[in-house]
Amino acid sequence: MSEMIAERQRTYSFGGGRADGASGLRNLLGGKGANLAEMSLLGLPVPPGFTITTETCNHYYAAGRRMPEGLSEEAGKALEALETLTGKRFGDPSNPLLVSVRSGARASMPGMMDTVLNLGLGDASVEGLAARSGDRRFAWDSYRRFIQMYSHVVLGVSHDAFEHALEVYKDERDFRNDLDLGHEDWTEIVAQFQDIVLRRTGQPFPQDPRTQLWGAIEAVFRSWMNDRAIFYRKLHDIPESWGTAVTVQAMVFGNMGLKSATGVAFTRNPSTGENAIYGEFLINAQGEDVVAGLRTPNAISRAARAQLGGREPSMEEAMPVAFAELSAIAARLERHYRDMQDIEFTIEEGTLFMLQTRNGKRTTPAALRIAVDMVGEGLITRDEAILRIDAKALDQMLHPTISPNYKRDVLAIGLPASPGAAVGEVVFDPDEAATLAADGKAVILVRVDTAPEDIHGMHAARAIVTARGGMTSHAAVVARGMGRACVCGASGLRIDEAAGQFSIGGRVVRKGEIISVDGSTGQVLAGAAQLVQPELSGPFGALMGWADERRRLRVRANAETPADARMARDFGAEGIGLCRTEHMFFDHERVAFVREMILADSLADRNKALAKLLPVQRGDFEALFEIMGTRPVTIRLLDPPLHEFLPHGEKDIAAVAEATGLPASALMARAGELHESNPMLGHRGCRLGITFPEIYDMQARAIFEAAGAVAARTGFMPNVEIMIPLVSAKKELDILKANVSRVADECRVATGQEIPFSVGTMIELPRAALRAGDIALAAEFFSFGTNDLTQTTLGMSRDDARFLKIYADLGIYDKDPFQTLDQDGVGDLMRIALERGKAARPVLKTGICGEHGGDPATISFCEEIGLDYVSCSPFRVPIARLAAAQAAILREK
Amino acid sequence: MSEMIAERQRTYSFGGGRADGASGLRNLLGGKGANLAEMSLLGLPVPPGFTITTETCNHYYAAGRRMPEGLSEEAGKALEALETLTGKRFGDPSNPLLVSVRSGARASMPGMMDTVLNLGLGDASVEGLAARSGDRRFAWDSYRRFIQMYSHVVLGVSHDAFEHALEVYKDERDFRNDLDLGHEDWTEIVAQFQDIVLRRTGQPFPQDPRTQLWGAIEAVFRSWMNDRAIFYRKLHDIPESWGTAVTVQAMVFGNMGLKSATGVAFTRNPSTGENAIYGEFLINAQGEDVVAGLRTPNAISRAARAQLGGREPSMEEAMPVAFAELSAIAARLERHYRDMQDIEFTIEEGTLFMLQTRNGKRTTPAALRIAVDMVGEGLITRDEAILRIDAKALDQMLHPTISPNYKRDVLAIGLPASPGAAVGEVVFDPDEAATLAADGKAVILVRVDTAPEDIHGMHAARAIVTARGGMTSHAAVVARGMGRACVCGASGLRIDEAAGQFSIGGRVVRKGEIISVDGSTGQVLAGAAQLVQPELSGPFGALMGWADERRRLRVRANAETPADARMARDFGAEGIGLCRTEHMFFDHERVAFVREMILADSLADRNKALAKLLPVQRGDFEALFEIMGTRPVTIRLLDPPLHEFLPHGEKDIAAVAEATGLPASALMARAGELHESNPMLGHRGCRLGITFPEIYDMQARAIFEAAGAVAARTGFMPNVEIMIPLVSAKKELDILKANVSRVADECRVATGQEIPFSVGTMIELPRAALRAGDIALAAEFFSFGTNDLTQTTLGMSRDDARFLKIYADLGIYDKDPFQTLDQDGVGDLMRIALERGKAARPVLKTGICGEHGGDPATISFCEEIGLDYVSCSPFRVPIARLAAAQAAILREK
Repeated sequence: MSEMIAERQRTYSFGGGRADGASGLRNLLGGKGANLAEMSLLGLPVPPGFTITTETCNHYYAAGRRMPEGLSEEAGKALEALETLTGKRFGDPSNPLLVSVRSGARASMPGMMDTVLNLGLGDASVEGLAARSGDRRFAWDSYRRFIQMYSHVVLGVSHDAFEHALEVYKDERDFRNDLDLGHEDWTEIVAQFQDIVLRRTGQPFPQDPRTQLWGAIEAVFRSWMNDRAIFYRKLHDIPESWGTAVTVQAMVFGNMGLKSATGVAFTRNPSTGENAIYGEFLINAQGEDVVAGLRTPNAISRAARAQLGGREPSMEEAMPVAFAELSAIAARLERHYRDMQDIEFTIEEGTLFMLQTRNGKRTTPAALRIAVDMVGEGLITRDEAILRIDAKALDQMLHPTISPNYKRDVLAIGLPASPGAAVGEVVFDPDEAATLAADGKAVILVRVDTAPEDIHGMHAARAIVTARGGMTSHAAVVARGMGRACVCGASGLRIDEAAGQFSIGGRVVRKGEIISVDGSTGQVLAGAAQLVQPELSGPFGALMGWADERRRLRVRANAETPADARMARDFGAEGIGLCRTEHMFFDHERVAFVREMILADSLADRNKALAKLLPVQRGDFEALFEIMGTRPVTIRLLDPPLHEFLPHGEKDIAAVAEATGLPASALMARAGELHESNPMLGHRGCRLGITFPEIYDMQARAIFEAAGAVAARTGFMPNVEIMIPLVSAKKELDILKANVSRVADECRVATGQEIPFSVGTMIELPRAALRAGDIALAAEFFSFGTNDLTQTTLGMSRDDARFLKIYADLGIYDKDPFQTLDQDGVGDLMRIALERGKAARPVLKTGICGEHGGDPATISFCEEIGLDYVSCSPFRVPIARLAAAQAAILREK
Repeated sequence: MSEMIAERQRTYSFGGGRADGASGLRNLLGGKGANLAEMSLLGLPVPPGFTITTETCNHYYAAGRRMPEGLSEEAGKALEALETLTGKRFGDPSNPLLVSVRSGARASMPGMMDTVLNLGLGDASVEGLAARSGDRRFAWDSYRRFIQMYSHVVLGVSHDAFEHALEVYKDERDFRNDLDLGHEDWTEIVAQFQDIVLRRTGQPFPQDPRTQLWGAIEAVFRSWMNDRAIFYRKLHDIPESWGTAVTVQAMVFGNMGLKSATGVAFTRNPSTGENAIYGEFLINAQGEDVVAGLRTPNAISRAARAQLGGREPSMEEAMPVAFAELSAIAARLERHYRDMQDIEFTIEEGTLFMLQTRNGKRTTPAALRIAVDMVGEGLITRDEAILRIDAKALDQMLHPTISPNYKRDVLAIGLPASPGAAVGEVVFDPDEAATLAADGKAVILVRVDTAPEDIHGMHAARAIVTARGGMTSHAAVVARGMGRACVCGASGLRIDEAAGQFSIGGRVVRKGEIISVDGSTGQVLAGAAQLVQPELSGPFGALMGWADERRRLRVRANAETPADARMARDFGAEGIGLCRTEHMFFDHERVAFVREMILADSLADRNKALAKLLPVQRGDFEALFEIMGTRPVTIRLLDPPLHEFLPHGEKDIAAVAEATGLPASALMARAGELHESNPMLGHRGCRLGITFPEIYDMQARAIFEAAGAVAARTGFMPNVEIMIPLVSAKKELDILKANVSRVADECRVATGQEIPFSVGTMIELPRAALRAGDIALAAEFFSFGTNDLTQTTLGMSRDDARFLKIYADLGIYDKDPFQTLDQDGVGDLMRIALERGKAARPVLKTGICGEHGGDPATISFCEEIGLDYVSCSPFRVPIARLAAAQAAILREK
């Protein structure tokens, strides 16, 4: 359908096995209108109606909230056709046509816009409805509901006035609930309601159904711009320019007695993905009643009823004919749409009507099972299956979760900073966390916030809770990297470390008490929650296998510890893309050597301290190499400024001085000397390697000695990649590469073993990206360090970007640039770097490490610009594998 | 001459009115060799000789320090030609040829390489010299000097051995000095020296002149790689690949009696530029004697002698014929080389010989006068005059200097961080500095280091001295910006503020005592030095006028205060390119309002504080607009993070709390809240304007109201440019531009006055440069903030880049990127920004502000990429005007 037609034709009728529209016209008719047309075309029992296009909504706003000319005639004709099809007439006192008027945008916006039901009722036609249904109470109750809904939505009279009148009426008569009211009562209420409308608006309640309809259509258009719709659109990136359609449809009634019912069905189980119709229904009820929760709906299938232990009969038992018809339609819809459907239906006096169908929402496990099953059934292709899974949602699959049946005792709610659930005893001190964990205890580290020197405690803990900090705070970033559950910024939390307790909302939890953490919801729970372990075989395994076949991008992990490396390998990592050697130095015993090195006044003293670090560092690398086999392992030489290893503040310094025997005054003086105004932009990265070559020399020696030892022991040669951080000029790399080569030569001479290795660089400064042509002459690989590249390109410190919330509200950046790569800015630099780098060295290997490497949108960008691999935290490896496959498939399209 | 010839011909003869070479062959023959050839060609009296090329030196090193084959034959022929020309023979016992062997590189490297004089003497030829000169003592003294020099330079025998033998000889005979020794003594000494050589080297001193010559030539080549030559080359960016030439030249003797002399002359006065021959000479002396300072040389002209009050007759008086000849030659050389010449000459028994000529070094005032005079004389063009002045050196002209005759009592030496000299009383506290200055006292602020809150004190002081910090420390940068003399990092300085004194090297200086500061040398002096004020008219004015006619780039100044704006205008600034409004807030009284604003909890309270700032800010702008007339004034809205306005540390906070009445606890808490890990990358610039729009609104209002008031008062409309800092996305600019326009509308409505203005942005983040196409749609001008752009592009905090010294030593960056723009990195981003920005808005106005805007190399780059203007600190405006003209002229070439 072309835009021309869309501009000419404003109403699209459906029903009676025919339709002007079809599901392909979703943009014009909204999701609901398009699917109703499609179901009509399929010959399914759909109450007839017509849809006014989204274009009309846009014209309405473009014209300053005026309905376009000609619409009234066009809608009038559609209405006449509807009367003909139903055999009912609008306002007919004997057999009135009643309609619903609903919104319907291109994307589902549940409950955000307005709806009017039972439209067409008036003082005359209500009697016709009473006669046709044989139920006066039903008719007058419908009428009062209509007045209330219409007055609220169209006339702007608040619900309160009506509710108040109803309450007074019931109180005066001592009625408990609505079921106590008979048709006389509703007749009286209708009169009172009409009186309210007259007093509030100065006009009687409109009796002409066409006036009613006109008002309702405009009200639906208006609701496109109400506050909650605007908010919802912003939240879900829905453009205002889409507009909403309006669907006018003949009413059917599930509340016309015991042969009537209403319900919702899924063609497969949306929780588990089981291939069996699933849903709930209520006899003698309207959709509202299900939503309102006044009555408990029953399962539709016998099997589900048996499973859930319901007492009432299922639809399969109570209405076997309708059930059979529904099952057949469900199967047909699923085949037609090639996806699991979420169906709304109504049975009016034994006749089944379909009110809506759409692709059903589902849990991630269900999504996996459905996708894999449908491939098995020949319904969809493997590529389609891969595209159907939200890669980000895989996170849920990879961590333990709290059993859905467990009753939660919520102590505190913070930000869901890192997913997964954990149970353990409360500990406040990182050192104590490490000690207890070494004894096999499960601990949860609770801190005001965390700092680099807490890393060993964070690693030892099952979960981390902080009182301060956001989604990109140190705690959050590190926890995600380690795959630890984390709740950040639990702002009511008061930690009294001296007293060994924290308090929140009047409750006190002491050190050693058991708590549970749900990092996926941000909840901190009292007591030990029941955990469910992840299931990584079955559909998950099958789908990941298909993804691996389809993707071009390699996936590596950021990992330093043997535990993380093993987990990464088990999650399918094809190598280590970033081993941050500084993380290896925060260990209790080692940090003492590091501090000794920092305090050294002479090269000789520094070398003495480095000699103590050499064997432990060598041991680290041996362990990594053994685990990773022949997979590449990219080791980044020391990166952070040295002051990060020193204690800060007098108290900390005193404690360290006592613990280590290093003089407090020296620690204090050195910390003062090393202090930096902007440590992000300070004396770190390769600048350390340039100014203290002996540090990098030690690390290089440890790498070569470890590789040699592993090769001798196992017979395979590790795949060593040495990465120089924070390079901004080729000459830095020249100097450091020469040093590494010299150490390699020394090791070869000493051992007689030749260790193959490559040397590359992080591209994490704008200058490095710009000078990539030059730098590539010296670098065998580029790894984009997009964390720092984002900070420098945007001139924005991740730790200080508290204003980003306001920026997000104002839409200044499309996404949080620290979570999803800023393609326009940072991405442009990456493109420049690739172009220049590959021109100089066509075989340059390129990858990305850092937080963005596990973000699907970023991975799609990496595919587009042709990187060789992404590297991310171990828990994100499966996400990256899937996202890479999706990106490859979409790129081919 | 082509490279082919250069490779074939290794020796170039000169003398007797002929020469193989010429001044154009400087690269091949070195400066000395080329000019000797040129003088020969001019027919000037040059002792004949020959030059071995720089290529030969390179061959020598390329072959592993071996003399190239064939050289010996070629040099032998040149020697024979020399013998023919002089009528003397090498080693001839009756009339020996004696030669000097000197180095000569493309660029002058005074004293860095070796020289041998009197070569050709031996036991036989010394008698020939004695006979020819009629002076045995002279001959034997020459011989012993030759042995000593040759043995040291060629044979590696240290001077000490010879000096010791001579001392012993004199002691035994009770001789006081060398003049007491007769020819018999020198004969005896020569025997002793020869004995020393035999003992030290195992070989007798070489008697064959050819062997001597060969050794001396190789020694000169070797000296190209001695430590001091290498160091000098590094210091002056002289490539190793240039090599040195060797010139072998017949000796002439200025020490052959009272009709002989030696001297140095400048064709014009190198201190003042006066057009009169100037120089010194000594009768009966060799060049060494002048250098050694054993005798005081005399003025060559009668006028100079009269001026200096010398007692001995001038050369003009003592040797009128030679003087007349010298004067004529000097005039001819100047006309020939079209520049002031520095000439070395010798008179041997009444005959004048020219030994060297080269362009003479001169002071900046002399350079200006000479250039302008030569234009007047028709010798050079205005363009040539403009190109002859080192723009950077103009700095000397613009500040007071310490009288050259003043005897300095140096207290301390630090870094020459900001040029100029000042005298004042010592003060340690910035507030006190401001108070005393307001009373008309001249003060010098002495601090350990400075911080943004000290700015009012720095501005009030005549000069600033710090104990800590480098050339790019806060104190240095701010002082240069303000044009205050500054000495930084005077590391021996111990400041005891409590005791009101500082001490250094055992000396104590109390508060209130007078000291002097020489920011051009880094010296801090005791007492009041005698100052010389700059002279800006005369040749300076003439040359600047020519420069203004030739330059395309406009030159603006960075200025906030009326004093700076006035100075900038007087120095020729064509507008203000950067008015940093935050500097206006550090004033004592105002900072209290700023702090009140920062502490405000509500918008209402913040507005109350802003209302107090509005009138003072308006006053600031009125003053600027009045001074600048219709010249453009670019006002940058508030830029630094708010915490910069708060006191830091408990002591400061308590002091501020007491002084202002603001609660200390609130100050402390707010400072804690606002603390940032990397303030450079934090909540500053337009991020403030986005999150606290009321601050920018107040500033915009102050601007429009001020412009309106000035227009009403003076009748001319100020040229207002409003600049938004730290933009990274177009939307930031959209939002803030809309706010500014709204305020403009409000002001127009209130006053009925239409104030024309433009809105532009700093380009100081890599993302802004990359998104320039987008941003230019909203910005009417770009001003490159290269300070921050350098920090973010290189990922390097200026305050923390202590490692840059090591980087400079290793040559990692060509220049200090904070002083001269990093063209390869930052410059590349500027190119990208211009290309994209101008594609989107062809009439985009572009400029640069920040430290680089006053750096000649950067200005040349700005000319090349086509910026419209540069903006720099007021004292750099003349430098920028000249550099811009030079860039324009060179670009046309």
